[in-house]
Amino acid sequence: MPAKPQKKVNNMTDLTRDLFLELDRTDVLAPFRDEFHLPDGMIYLDGNSLGVMPKVASARAQDVVAREWGQDLITSWNKNGWFHLAEKIGDKIAGLIGAAPGEVMACDATGINLYKLLFMALDLRPDRKIIVMEGSNFPTDNYMAQGLIQQLDRGHEIYFVEQEAILAAITEEVAVVCLTQVHYKTGHLHDMAAITEKAHQVGALIIWDLCHSAGALPVDLNGCHADFAVGCGYKYLNGGPGAPAFIFVAKCHQGKARQPLTGWWSHAAPFAFEQDYRPADNIWQTLTGTQSILALSVLECGIDITLRADMAKVRDKSKALCDYFIGLTDQHCDGFGFSLASPRDGDGRGSQISLNHPKGFAIMQALIAENVIGDFRAPDIMRFGFTPLYTRYIDIWDAVMCLKNIMEKELWLNPEYDQPTAVT
Amino acid sequence: MPAKPQKKVNNMTDLTRDLFLELDRTDVLAPFRDEFHLPDGMIYLDGNSLGVMPKVASARAQDVVAREWGQDLITSWNKNGWFHLAEKIGDKIAGLIGAAPGEVMACDATGINLYKLLFMALDLRPDRKIIVMEGSNFPTDNYMAQGLIQQLDRGHEIYFVEQEAILAAITEEVAVVCLTQVHYKTGHLHDMAAITEKAHQVGALIIWDLCHSAGALPVDLNGCHADFAVGCGYKYLNGGPGAPAFIFVAKCHQGKARQPLTGWWSHAAPFAFEQDYRPADNIWQTLTGTQSILALSVLECGIDITLRADMAKVRDKSKALCDYFIGLTDQHCDGFGFSLASPRDGDGRGSQISLNHPKGFAIMQALIAENVIGDFRAPDIMRFGFTPLYTRYIDIWDAVMCLKNIMEKELWLNPEYDQPTAVT
Repeated sequence: MPAKPQKKVNNMTDLTRDLFLELDRTDVLAPFRDEFHLPDGMIYLDGNSLGVMPKVASARAQDVVAREWGQDLITSWNKNGWFHLAEKIGDKIAGLIGAAPGEVMACDATGINLYKLLFMALDLRPDRKIIVMEGSNFPTDNYMAQGLIQQLDRGHEIYFVEQEAILAAITEEVAVVCLTQVHYKTGHLHDMAAITEKAHQVGALIIWDLCHSAGALPVDLNGCHADFAVGCGYKYLNGGPGAPAFIFVAKCHQGKARQPLTGWWSHAAPFAFEQDYRPADNIWQTLTGTQSILALSVLECGIDITLRADMAKVRDKSKALCDYFIGLTDQHCDGFGFSLASPRDGDGRGSQISLNHPKGFAIMQALIAENVIGDFRAPDIMRFGFTPLYTRYIDIWDAVMCLKNIMEKELWLNPEYDQPTAVT
Repeated sequence: MPAKPQKKVNNMTDLTRDLFLELDRTDVLAPFRDEFHLPDGMIYLDGNSLGVMPKVASARAQDVVAREWGQDLITSWNKNGWFHLAEKIGDKIAGLIGAAPGEVMACDATGINLYKLLFMALDLRPDRKIIVMEGSNFPTDNYMAQGLIQQLDRGHEIYFVEQEAILAAITEEVAVVCLTQVHYKTGHLHDMAAITEKAHQVGALIIWDLCHSAGALPVDLNGCHADFAVGCGYKYLNGGPGAPAFIFVAKCHQGKARQPLTGWWSHAAPFAFEQDYRPADNIWQTLTGTQSILALSVLECGIDITLRADMAKVRDKSKALCDYFIGLTDQHCDGFGFSLASPRDGDGRGSQISLNHPKGFAIMQALIAENVIGDFRAPDIMRFGFTPLYTRYIDIWDAVMCLKNIMEKELWLNPEYDQPTAVT
């Protein structure tokens, strides 16, 4: 067995299906797969969009509904810990992203949390008017920023730049840099430490969107002295469809900036029912109203599993899965018109591989028809997400062989695969 | 049997436990109780805080988790209708609040939805600076308004007035009137038609918070030409702890005002992933990010039951339950120091009765110890919510007799009942 499996990418001639089976047999993360439900016969490579269901989630949902709600009712706020659930789960997420207890809350949607943080960051830098973002980022971050500066109407501007231009764009005019660490389309991984350092050198603040990083790779917010972060519960954290998001505010900023969505849960004394708003001076200042207890409880199932995994090993396997996918595609799908949209170097990408193909939509539909699930992003990107806790090496081999077969037999020419349809 | 049971309030001398049993036997709404899970032996009078569990909710949660998420995964966005779930449930809620399909979305938390609407209303009245609110309202509405005007920093002011002064406060300076239809502490019911009409006479807009009305009494937003509304899913709609809230924008305002939380689901073409924000011109403009599918699906269970009830009959029974509670308390708890915090006239209140008592906290703890569940709000309010779909007439008799026994035997003097604790 190779100590560094990614080396095999440079020498694919001896790769066989048996080798991938052997890689699974010696994979220290392999036992985690049994903690998730994978539909029979499906190769699921879309955990970057919606993570699979932890087996315990079903019983947990049942317990929250039937016992905590149905039986214990209002006493659950204390008896079953509902009142502190957002904070408790936030503390657990903190352990996955290099944050400390008391720096993270699990709440609301990613975009709403980003709105809170953008406002807070601008509030801390009242004399600066520039926000640096990546134009090709997942749109909700950019839309939220556009909406915020329009409503503030104080001359803020967003500089939309692409990855290679980001460091240069971070100047002393900049109030806040807001970036998604792993690009949703290409999987490109920003250098969090370098960009954060550059922002701080010029007196700017940074917001990291961890939607495609949390649970997918080691993240060290405090190691990089990051100011703020948000992230998603339903991708690599396997929290269920539309699971609550999370929000991180570094201790040093808590209580220093105004949070704009001043709901009662963010009040210094929520149950005093005072007429006037007084913000909490800790992470509670990021809350708004009552969160879905059911959604939070189910999210916790996925997080608990991830916390038991060694993230360094997750990262190693993630790189290996991606490398093998690239290597096998290079070897077996050459000449079919694919190009690699993701960085070839494992250190420069997250846990997904994207391929460009002008017929990408139809090809992805053909893959899905064969029970190999990835997804498509306009105009021509086929995305394959690799989630080391449940993706096997053999899945990589079988997925690429399926892709090869589709291309060789032109199965994607099926007229049923012509029309785009709503996917997330 | 009395045709109008509330008449009995004026003549309580012939009330017996048997009469209440008889009222239940002839109650046309009585069969609904069997659709909910009520813990054995519990008299639950706190549906104004957290509604009870519809029996189908448990199986529904199981199905969403195990089949829709676990088995169908990403295909559920189309196959299981996830993409349109917020709208579908919004349309159902519309049927309970006098709105039309396409005017309501089920999403986010009440406070966040109120923030959206306050901003939209101010955006439609740029030359006016006054917001009229009720100072004693549930704080989150007021806090959200305070936060918003502070961040806008354009000279807006909130006039906090109490119920009797509201109509007079609505002048031509007023941009928006924002009121909760039923007061969370007293149960006082505002005259939605009259206040809305007054607001429109002076060119102001109105936002109704229906947290304590939706599912509790007939609401006719369009009949009153209301502009905007929000409401809660976890009280009288029995949607589960922290269930998604809802937001109503009258057709005439859709696409006319800016919604400040410009997440991708509010974009005119969310899946085009355009760089620049373009708002939807329909109710989708009120959305932000992905909602919890699990929380929405469970909310739907409670709404479906409520939709099958005749809201006029719900209102009649609600008034009768409240009237009997007042009448029995007058008769059996006289001299114990209680005073009625709620309007005595059924037309002037929602579906709760509140009693003031200086030892209210301890008395409520004593009631809870006897499995009669209401709640307490500082400084001295004991709240009892009556939810006609599952509260029985006999519950009223038994609850008041329990209260009488507690007062006669001074059971509330138990030192365990001394300390306030967090409740919602």
